[in-house]
Amino acid sequence: MSAPMKTKMQSTLFKLNIWQRLCSYRCYSTLKKNINDILNQSCENGKLPVSTEGWIKSLRKQKKFTFFHLNDGSSSTSLQVVIDSQLCDRLISTGCSVHVEGDLVKSHGQGQAVEVQASSVRVIGQCDNDEYPLKAKSNYTVEYTRQLLHLRPRTEHHSNLLKLRNTASMAVHKYFQDQGYLFIHTPIISSNDCEGAGETFSVETDVSKLPIQEDKPEQTNQDSKSFFGHPAYLTVSGQLHLEAATGAFRKVYNFGPTFRAENSVGRHHLAEFYMIEAELAFTETLEDIMKEMESLVKHTCYTMIDSHESIVDYFWKLSSHSEQKSISTRLIESNFIRMTYSEAIKVLERKNDIFKFKAYWGCDLQKEHEKYLVKHCNNVPVFVTDFPASLKPFYARRNSEENTVAAVDLLVPEVGELFGGSLREERYDIIKSRLDDLQLTESYQWYLDLRRYGSVTHGGFGMGFERLLQCFLGINSIKDTIPFPRWIHHCSL
Amino acid sequence: MSAPMKTKMQSTLFKLNIWQRLCSYRCYSTLKKNINDILNQSCENGKLPVSTEGWIKSLRKQKKFTFFHLNDGSSSTSLQVVIDSQLCDRLISTGCSVHVEGDLVKSHGQGQAVEVQASSVRVIGQCDNDEYPLKAKSNYTVEYTRQLLHLRPRTEHHSNLLKLRNTASMAVHKYFQDQGYLFIHTPIISSNDCEGAGETFSVETDVSKLPIQEDKPEQTNQDSKSFFGHPAYLTVSGQLHLEAATGAFRKVYNFGPTFRAENSVGRHHLAEFYMIEAELAFTETLEDIMKEMESLVKHTCYTMIDSHESIVDYFWKLSSHSEQKSISTRLIESNFIRMTYSEAIKVLERKNDIFKFKAYWGCDLQKEHEKYLVKHCNNVPVFVTDFPASLKPFYARRNSEENTVAAVDLLVPEVGELFGGSLREERYDIIKSRLDDLQLTESYQWYLDLRRYGSVTHGGFGMGFERLLQCFLGINSIKDTIPFPRWIHHCSL
Repeated sequence: MSAPMKTKMQSTLFKLNIWQRLCSYRCYSTLKKNINDILNQSCENGKLPVSTEGWIKSLRKQKKFTFFHLNDGSSSTSLQVVIDSQLCDRLISTGCSVHVEGDLVKSHGQGQAVEVQASSVRVIGQCDNDEYPLKAKSNYTVEYTRQLLHLRPRTEHHSNLLKLRNTASMAVHKYFQDQGYLFIHTPIISSNDCEGAGETFSVETDVSKLPIQEDKPEQTNQDSKSFFGHPAYLTVSGQLHLEAATGAFRKVYNFGPTFRAENSVGRHHLAEFYMIEAELAFTETLEDIMKEMESLVKHTCYTMIDSHESIVDYFWKLSSHSEQKSISTRLIESNFIRMTYSEAIKVLERKNDIFKFKAYWGCDLQKEHEKYLVKHCNNVPVFVTDFPASLKPFYARRNSEENTVAAVDLLVPEVGELFGGSLREERYDIIKSRLDDLQLTESYQWYLDLRRYGSVTHGGFGMGFERLLQCFLGINSIKDTIPFPRWIHHCSL
Repeated sequence: MSAPMKTKMQSTLFKLNIWQRLCSYRCYSTLKKNINDILNQSCENGKLPVSTEGWIKSLRKQKKFTFFHLNDGSSSTSLQVVIDSQLCDRLISTGCSVHVEGDLVKSHGQGQAVEVQASSVRVIGQCDNDEYPLKAKSNYTVEYTRQLLHLRPRTEHHSNLLKLRNTASMAVHKYFQDQGYLFIHTPIISSNDCEGAGETFSVETDVSKLPIQEDKPEQTNQDSKSFFGHPAYLTVSGQLHLEAATGAFRKVYNFGPTFRAENSVGRHHLAEFYMIEAELAFTETLEDIMKEMESLVKHTCYTMIDSHESIVDYFWKLSSHSEQKSISTRLIESNFIRMTYSEAIKVLERKNDIFKFKAYWGCDLQKEHEKYLVKHCNNVPVFVTDFPASLKPFYARRNSEENTVAAVDLLVPEVGELFGGSLREERYDIIKSRLDDLQLTESYQWYLDLRRYGSVTHGGFGMGFERLLQCFLGINSIKDTIPFPRWIHHCSL
């Protein structure tokens, strides 16, 4: 046997050995049935014994029988349970948690295939219905439940949202992993405030109050009152850090929390939100970047429909837009439109009489402009490319026409800007001179290093995760797309 | 056709329709070959034309031929390229990026199956070898590259680490998703400092400097100098927030950044690190929690071996421990040991002569105690359970012996404590009285609500992601397990 062959066989045997041990361990683990498993069981030919737990979502007590809907969050449909009122725990009420024993049988009622005929219902945790703020079955307004962040997951509405958020999160990772991207945790605390893209939060601690650890820090000359020795901020973007990784990997991405101290209570803004950012090396055209942006949106939205069509439909029906479904499916079905900034300005100038801010070449696109452009494109998402250099950050790559840069915004219905992207300036001399102009050269030495040592043409983009959910599901306020929204004067729990 | 049948068919047709449109979109996307794809091509029967890009990892110029190793981060092995020195770009050097055209042929050299006979090598970005801090092929110390966070991904060592980190991150998500857990983004900015588990960072911004937005915030009575209207902190744990979700879902988890302002330069501490936390509802024994903890470790470690055995092996061989492989595989192969705190103390008391801190019932376990216990267990990870109530936070569930709680620590070789977990006190009266004692009742009203309204027996755990990498790979300092380490006086980039 050849040496490489032998090594390969040893490796296979090694892996097999630990795999077998792993499997033998797994056998220990008992599988408990959740409500979703139970609902998916078939009992055409009789009864199946079941034992499960959950919370009572709605309750109807009759003299002879007590009926309730039980859920444990595993299914969007609840399980109907019937029990002889004599046998039922007297403490039962809406919102309480119970343990149920009984038989699963075919249901003769409407709206469900199976139900449980319970022999015992035992209350685990009572629910004080005099005070419980979610005792009614009726739908609460999102403004009401937003005051109850700790109980909100129990409502059908927010439970649905959390399931889609989970699915969409995994879809994003799957998209990038399948395309060979490497997931990089860019830092949350940073000494950089990136593009000065938004107002930043600073991070500090009272160093004098910290207990001294066994391994006492080395003596330094740095400002001892500050933990890091200099100001530190919450990240507003991981792009620059991702670019460092693009000096070693062809494709990288992150997906993490991002912060902007925005003085806004508007329905499109959060102080803490999730960004998906990606960088691609050896990329020479904006079209490569746009293809990735478009694929990512299509893949993520399709996965939500494919996994939870009924929940997606639930949100579409709630939307104030009568055509929400038709608008949202365009995100998947339609080829996104491409339009240069200059073309966009021409379209807008023709309508300057209806705008509060008049459009002209060189102006920043306002929300009213973005909305008009999307409408102009028949509610199909539109890429606007090649902006004036003055409107975009220093790292956007100069086009051969000197006054524009290879930057792109994706505009979508309702939300406006969903994505920003650009080719990054990889030419040392050009970026150096831009940094000089901004007097940033000193603090961006490391960023210049990336251009001094094996620089590559590259580009990337950043997408607001909550804005994608908001746009695709037709959710009015971004505050209802995240479990614990933070905005000015609001940081509950 | 019955109505439900018709609905189901419509739904299938709807999904099929958008799926087809999605696929037709995908055809546009061109597939570029990366180095890994090229290395996995077979060319037994001749030549295959190739065109690719990458960075030159090492270079040998001879009079007639120039040889170099090319990589783009997609493979742990580099691609050998040979070119007639006359045809080669004169600007070529180690660290520069190049575009290569040529033929893939079977290699006659050792150590590689294929190589590229290039017809053209064009430099994309030069690398100034007089100043490039990574020009030598030799292995740099981790202390040296830690000063070069922006270039570190280019070293074989750190590139390997980032690949395993990516794999382990996805393995964690896959584990939880396969087990029916819901991924919840717990907040990063919180008004809670959880258990007071560590020193916290506070978050603030200069509100007076924020520009006023169009949608001017409503007037409030709150302190207008503060963004949130009260002190806000970086999260030290998402557990309490996850517990809110455990009032609606059977199983939830998070996986995100966590912060401790620790006054330590030690090899086990970071100011910013990643935690994996999970909560399980309807759980009555610590054994259920321990099974999940053990499965998660085994699954994550096995996935690293299964996906990147040679890289895992690379780290094991580097480790200062001669038996690193044998110790690490125990994390997968061995059944973890269970031992109560009282039993552990008995073991330790017999060895009190060798400890700096003498062990006695009621004492906190010191690093020296943890290390001894693991050694005592033949380097098999050991769960220590049922700690004195005074050593654990207020939420740990009281055992029937009043002075202990159902809490568990997992101790592993080298690192010591890898996990902490517990059943959570679900009984309103008991937790209320503990909060009263601590004078926390007022600020924890929401947490008490979870016990007033349909409380359930539940429990969970938190694992330090970097500590798992450190322990399994035998990496000396935790600072080399994360792309951008932050610790006291260090927040580079």
